[in-house]
Amino acid sequence: MARFRITVSYDGTDFVGWQRQAAGVSIQGLLEDALAELDEAAVSVLGAGRTDAGVHALGQVAAFTLTRAIAADAVVRALNVRLPLSVRVLEAEEVAADFHPQFAATSKAYRYRIWNSDIVSPFERQYVWHVFGALDVAAMNEAARMLEGTHDFAAFQGTGSDVKTTERTVFSSLVLRQAQDERSESVIRYEVSGAGFLRHMVRAIVGTLVEIGRGRRPPEWMREVVASRNRSEAGVTAPAAGLFLVRVEY
Amino acid sequence: MARFRITVSYDGTDFVGWQRQAAGVSIQGLLEDALAELDEAAVSVLGAGRTDAGVHALGQVAAFTLTRAIAADAVVRALNVRLPLSVRVLEAEEVAADFHPQFAATSKAYRYRIWNSDIVSPFERQYVWHVFGALDVAAMNEAARMLEGTHDFAAFQGTGSDVKTTERTVFSSLVLRQAQDERSESVIRYEVSGAGFLRHMVRAIVGTLVEIGRGRRPPEWMREVVASRNRSEAGVTAPAAGLFLVRVEY
Repeated sequence: MARFRITVSYDGTDFVGWQRQAAGVSIQGLLEDALAELDEAAVSVLGAGRTDAGVHALGQVAAFTLTRAIAADAVVRALNVRLPLSVRVLEAEEVAADFHPQFAATSKAYRYRIWNSDIVSPFERQYVWHVFGALDVAAMNEAARMLEGTHDFAAFQGTGSDVKTTERTVFSSLVLRQAQDERSESVIRYEVSGAGFLRHMVRAIVGTLVEIGRGRRPPEWMREVVASRNRSEAGVTAPAAGLFLVRVEY
Repeated sequence: MARFRITVSYDGTDFVGWQRQAAGVSIQGLLEDALAELDEAAVSVLGAGRTDAGVHALGQVAAFTLTRAIAADAVVRALNVRLPLSVRVLEAEEVAADFHPQFAATSKAYRYRIWNSDIVSPFERQYVWHVFGALDVAAMNEAARMLEGTHDFAAFQGTGSDVKTTERTVFSSLVLRQAQDERSESVIRYEVSGAGFLRHMVRAIVGTLVEIGRGRRPPEWMREVVASRNRSEAGVTAPAAGLFLVRVEY
């Protein structure tokens, strides 16, 4: 018996999300099916966190226990030959038998990508939120920085959640216009890291930042939204396609 | 009556190529169908060059004549609302009635992208050729530079071509490791521009460069291949997915 931690990248476009569902293809389901074939027994895969349908991951982390003796490098190869090319296991390492990828995580980082020019590149259409009209990146960044620290983020929590506390600690929160590269000269990025996040929290923050970027509200409005603890005070939930789980730290 | 020149970007993954075919969806076909709806008459669209199935374009150029009076900006919008998001018209301008996008072109530039690490990012799988094992980029670049100038490129011409001469002039030809960006740290790029290209020429050059990059042949082998004028002396035709038509100049 050995427990493994893996880092997984996936293009979320065609999936129902991380978590196994009654219908549709999930990342967790693909991994569990591939591991069941490898281990010749049912294997349960735990993720560091759920990602919704259409959300992408550059570095999701998951863990599982295998009965078969196998080296970590071989786990990477064995999984990748069984997974579709839209899901890749980047690395694996053996961990303690009680390792829990969600509870042991000390930090998670997300990126949200906004396309901010008239015409979306065909190569970016599934990886951005297309926002028309000029956005004031400096104002968005000023508002984003106000979220750093420990706050009650109830105003940014999606409905249907059942958590003990809506208080969370955000380590860094900033908005920047992406350095120009060959494929994404019109992209504005929101980069956020924290000890934990509520359901839909990043997407609700982005919806709120865009209101500020459009000049409909001043940066200080962000503090009022937080203080309200009321989801209806914040902006819309930004679309899933722009969101990337960048990494999980332990 | 007015003639328009448009610049078009497309993700070639799901198409049979630029040219209208008996079966399957082509970029030319999509444009002609959209323009027929707009102009309420059959419209013929000429491209600067054909791209094969799976080949992408950042800046393909095409031209057509409309009977309806319409501003260039409106042509862009009217086409984009009728086209799938995988095809975007980036700009349009009115041109002389006899403008021919292929014959008037003075220069074309292509990019070929090679993924050169063990695991292909899920976000790059449709935009690269995955080449395993170390590649010597300096040797590849040395060989690529030998193609600059006017040469007989018969050794790199795909079968089934019917052209008067296989002599072509290449303005610049170079291989470089892509500057690291958020999504493509393992990419090697071949960048080539020239007055004109033979069918499959860029992909056959890339197949030859990869032989050199792998160290199976020295850079000087490129000169021998050119001198042979024999397709079977060169490397394989690299896959379509890695190829991008970058721009056409007039």
